[in-house]
Order: sequence, then C-alpha cells, then structure tokens
Amino acid sequence: MQKLFSLTVDLGERSYPISSSVYPELFLNQLKELIKSGRRVVVVTDDNLIKAQSLFFEQIIGDVPTFVIPAGEQSKSLECLSTVYSFFAREALDRKSAVIAIGGGVVGDLVGFAAASFLRGIDFFQVPTTLLAMVDSSVGGKTGINLPEGKNLAGAFHQPNAVFIVTDILKTLPLRDFSAGSAEVLKYGLLADEKLFTKLSELNGLATNDECLPEIIFRCCQIKADVVKEDEKETAPSGGRALLNLGHTFAHAIENVAGYGEYLHGEAVGIGLVAAARLSSRLGYLSSEEVSLIERVVLAYQLPVGLRESLPVEALVTAMRKDKKVSQGAIRFVVLESIGKAITLEGVEIALVEDVLSSLGAV
Amino acid sequence: MQKLFSLTVDLGERSYPISSSVYPELFLNQLKELIKSGRRVVVVTDDNLIKAQSLFFEQIIGDVPTFVIPAGEQSKSLECLSTVYSFFAREALDRKSAVIAIGGGVVGDLVGFAAASFLRGIDFFQVPTTLLAMVDSSVGGKTGINLPEGKNLAGAFHQPNAVFIVTDILKTLPLRDFSAGSAEVLKYGLLADEKLFTKLSELNGLATNDECLPEIIFRCCQIKADVVKEDEKETAPSGGRALLNLGHTFAHAIENVAGYGEYLHGEAVGIGLVAAARLSSRLGYLSSEEVSLIERVVLAYQLPVGLRESLPVEALVTAMRKDKKVSQGAIRFVVLESIGKAITLEGVEIALVEDVLSSLGAV
Repeated sequence: MQKLFSLTVDLGERSYPISSSVYPELFLNQLKELIKSGRRVVVVTDDNLIKAQSLFFEQIIGDVPTFVIPAGEQSKSLECLSTVYSFFAREALDRKSAVIAIGGGVVGDLVGFAAASFLRGIDFFQVPTTLLAMVDSSVGGKTGINLPEGKNLAGAFHQPNAVFIVTDILKTLPLRDFSAGSAEVLKYGLLADEKLFTKLSELNGLATNDECLPEIIFRCCQIKADVVKEDEKETAPSGGRALLNLGHTFAHAIENVAGYGEYLHGEAVGIGLVAAARLSSRLGYLSSEEVSLIERVVLAYQLPVGLRESLPVEALVTAMRKDKKVSQGAIRFVVLESIGKAITLEGVEIALVEDVLSSLGAV
Repeated sequence: MQKLFSLTVDLGERSYPISSSVYPELFLNQLKELIKSGRRVVVVTDDNLIKAQSLFFEQIIGDVPTFVIPAGEQSKSLECLSTVYSFFAREALDRKSAVIAIGGGVVGDLVGFAAASFLRGIDFFQVPTTLLAMVDSSVGGKTGINLPEGKNLAGAFHQPNAVFIVTDILKTLPLRDFSAGSAEVLKYGLLADEKLFTKLSELNGLATNDECLPEIIFRCCQIKADVVKEDEKETAPSGGRALLNLGHTFAHAIENVAGYGEYLHGEAVGIGLVAAARLSSRLGYLSSEEVSLIERVVLAYQLPVGLRESLPVEALVTAMRKDKKVSQGAIRFVVLESIGKAITLEGVEIALVEDVLSSLGAV
C-alpha cells in the first residue's frame, strides 16, 4: 500500500479534495469511474509531457480523447484557448462533461479557464506535473491566460473538482524546473510554518525521488488551502491571500525587467524571498542571522540569491508600481515578522526597497 | 418627477438592483458618483447606437473613455473580445475599476464576459438598449460569446452591479427589433403571469413611447428575477430556469435550420410560442380557444405565427436534439399547463412535435 496524503480545500459548495502520493492509482481509478458513469471525458496536456511520460499516458489515451498543446508560456494565449474550445466542441462536451488537465502551470491555467468558460463552466480535474504547479496552482482556483498587454490579465476563479498529485511524474521534470518549484515550497515554510522551514533547512535540498516529497507537497497545499479558504477572491484588506505573494512583488519586477524567460518564475521567487527577508530585517523584524539562514537555504535548493546580471533599480521600482496587485498606486509588501509568520505592509519607504534591490546587484 | 420602477435581483452577495424609467437621470447620477469616487470607469457600446443616440452619448463621452464595437452578432467573437480586453488594458483598468455596457444583447453578452474575465472579474454596469435586452439579458448574469462551432459556447455567469433600463432609448430602435423584443414580453406573461398576458392582449400591441412600458418591462424583469433566484445556474432537475425557454427549443431549431439572421431571435420566439401553445394543446393542457388567443396576440405584436418559408421537419428535429440544453439525448420541452403557468416535460413523443412543426409550415 502506498502512502497517500489527502485534504479537502474547504470552500463551501466549491470544496474539493487534493491527494498526494507517489503513484497514480487514485487518479486512474477516478478516471475509470468517470468513464463508467457515461459522462464525456477529455484530457488536455502538452507535447513535452506526452513524450516524457509516455508510459503514464499509455494508461489513458486509449480510453480518453486527448488534446496536446505546445509546451511553454506562449500557449497561455487567446489563440491557444480558441483551439482548446474547438476541441471541446468537436468532442461534443455538454454541461455534464469533465475536462482533465495534465501538466504544469500553463496547462492548468489555460485549461482551467477553458473549463470555467466553456458552456459557462464544466467540471475540471487537475493532475499537476511540475513541483510549482503541485504546490501553487493546484490550490486556489485561479485560472487564466496572458494578453499581449500583460500576464494573467484574463481568467476566472474556477475551483477544480479534484486535484491528483503524483510525485512519480516529477522524475522526468528538468532539474532546473524542479529547483524553481522548490522556491515556492520554501515560501510556504517562511510565510506560515516554521517547522516546515526548519525541516527543509535540515534536508538541505530535495530530490525528485525523495520519499518525503508527497508529504511536503501536501503540507504546502494545506497552508495554501487555509489561506485561500479565508480569502477566496483576494479581497481581504490586509493579510489573506496576499500573503502568498511573499517574495513575489520583487520576483514579478525582476521577471518583467529582465524579460520574461530570462529567469524561471521560481528562480525569481528565490531572489524575491531573499529580498523580502532583507527588507524584513531592515524594518526590524528579522535578525541578520535569520536572513543569513534564509539565504543559505535558498542556495541549498539550487536557487539564485541575487541577480545574475545587473538590472536598473529604477526600472524595477517602476515595474513594482505597475504590478496588478497594486491598488491605486500603493505598493503592498509581504514581509516576515518572524520565520513562519508573514504580514502585509503598505507605505514601506521606497528608499529601503531601493537599498534591498541594490544589495541584490541592481544599480 | 418621473415614475421609476425598481427591484432587487436577490442572489445573496451577488444581489443587484434593476431600475426602469423613461429617462436616464438615475444612470447619469450613478455614473457621476462612480467617477467622483476616483475609480476608473469605461463604456463599451456599438457603432449603430452611438450614431442613433448621439444626444444621450454627449452626456457621457466627454467624461468616460468609450470603446465602440461593430454592431451585430459577429461581434460576439473571440476576436472582438480580444479588442475589448486590449481597450481595458490600455485604459489601465484595475480590480476596482468599472465597465459600463450600453447596448443590446451582443454588447451586454460580450462586455459582460470581458468584465467577468478581465483580472478574473471586475465590476459591470448595464444599460440595455433593446427591448429584448431589457427584459431578457439584463437579468440572470449569463454572459458569453459565440464560437465557430456554435452560439454562446463560451462565457461566464457574472452578475452586473446594477442595471439601468431607460425606455426613451427605444425610440431609435428599429421597429422590427422592437417587435422581436415583444415576443419575450409575451413569453413572460404566458409562462408566469396570466394577468400580464391579459393586459398585453388588451393592449393589442406596444409602441416605443407607451407610458406603460417601464412598468411592463419591470414586471418581466421581476418574473425573470424570481425564476433565476431559485435556480441561478440552471441546475434544477425540472422547472427552474429552464421555464424561461418557453418557445425557445422551437425557436433555436428554426434559427439554426433557416440560417442565423434569416429570422430575428424574437421572431423565431414568436413562432416558438405558437408551437409551444399547440404542443400544450396536443398534450391536453390548453383548449383550442386558448391556442387561438395566443396566436392572435402574437400576430398583434407584429410577430410571425408560422414559417415564412418551409423548412424540413427532420432537420428541425435534429437541431432540437443538438440544442445545448439537451442532456444525454432527451429533449426537454417547456409547455403551458395553462396561460400563466409553464412546466418542463421530458419524453414528449416526437410524432407530436413533428405534427406541430408541420402545422407551422415545415415539411
């Protein structure tokens, strides 16, 4: 019997279960049941994954119509959404049909939005296949696409019916992506669970076949579920879902100014966590020992703790001001009151932020 | 003081007010308040309306960025949605911004979906400008676009923050469109309010400047609101929101087989109401006198009671089976138990339906 961790994301009538285990039995059973019930079921995945995980897909494709989109961020577009809609229409999906997204964040976000909007919303199951998607996009129901004008500008809140995390799939994930995903794992420890962070610092890094992986991922999902439950649509005036942006105001600015693709999102988050730690120390919350510990752990997880090439401070600050979380011009930062406890803070002096950016190698 | 009718569509935290009056004062006041509050506000409308209602728009355009889409069903497309998104992005709308849709069903559906999905949902105010949109699409929160594969295949349930019905705008509505809209007015009387139907039969037709218009439209909205409240997402196993489809299973089939645009939607609904009445009589619910009355009233409202040119019975039945309200192959009809009381019915014999279609002029 394999170890299986499961929790319910508690959102009233939109509640749904997440399971985390090494092997895909539970998912395959659910799939069989869906098919047996007579409902139409389709799968959407991407071309990298279907090649890398051919054995896994062999258990599925014979039974379920499968649509393959090109891997990569450029598929989070209206054009690609249109091809997914057409696939749904060709397969004559009706309001009782179910869509299964197997892939990383791009597949989950795109297919989630397609499921949210096709016939104004049909059932949606998720099998996240990157570490980032497992701990981040599988909880919270945020779906969406990019527009030429910016990332994630169009989308919907659409909770999945169930999420199946299968860590065995991580074995074919490129190591750079795995490390990038671990930035979000560290983030959860830092923002809400000192014990988790201590464990991660003791582990001193993760491998794709670590036995503890299903449990660690499960704990991250649990933290996110607790936060999302209290603030499903990110409307809390302080704290709430915004806490999940720890390190992200910095990370988004770095990604934006360096040019998307220059840093993986998780790599930018690694730098962002260090920046948030330094800012928290400048504000008198963290000791310099705690900041050093955070930097050491970020490094141990194969993540950058500073800019690879210098970026202009001014451009970074401008990008922060344009971040869509900004409300009427005020940048809201997430800082650490202590390791394991994040708070939101408005009105941080820009000079402090600029100092922190300089310390990362910005000029 | 002008007469003002108002109601609240009661949907818990998604409740919103609808007002109905001859002149636009209430809307213009709300607009001023929105602007004064410092929120970004934009208007979307279509090129026909902005020409026909130049005086009305003069009161708005100087103050509010306005985007004009081409009039007509072809604007309910992903391509046009993309131009609306770009407009929102150019105007730097944020999560606290508000979008105002001024127009008929196309503008309401398209802009409603854009507002539902931009930044995963921003505020949305509606000024419906056709009779059809006033009585139909301003209640219920259904928004959406057409896909090459079919009508309204993508969209969202997104309730507006408020709806302002201004009947003075109807004076520039083409008469054919006004008549088409009155089919939906008759529908409400038939499905839920014998008194309303009696009044409409006594009026023997409506004119765009009738003083009773705000009240009649208000009553239709009230009926729809009561139905929608009980079954917001059309999930009731019988009755519920499906009752609003009285005449529509026939109408959709006629529009589809004749080719979209051949009949205005309301014209097809006129024929559909006659068909539903005849089917109800065949099933033993309505007397032949009641059927005659319904036919006479439909005619009095300048609507067709039969096909203008013959269509094949078989193609119509096939189209009914493909209707997206169909669940797993069973066509569900809405029939009249009596004038003022509709019910849903499954398992109606196809031979009966074919007879009714023949009586409309199908072969």
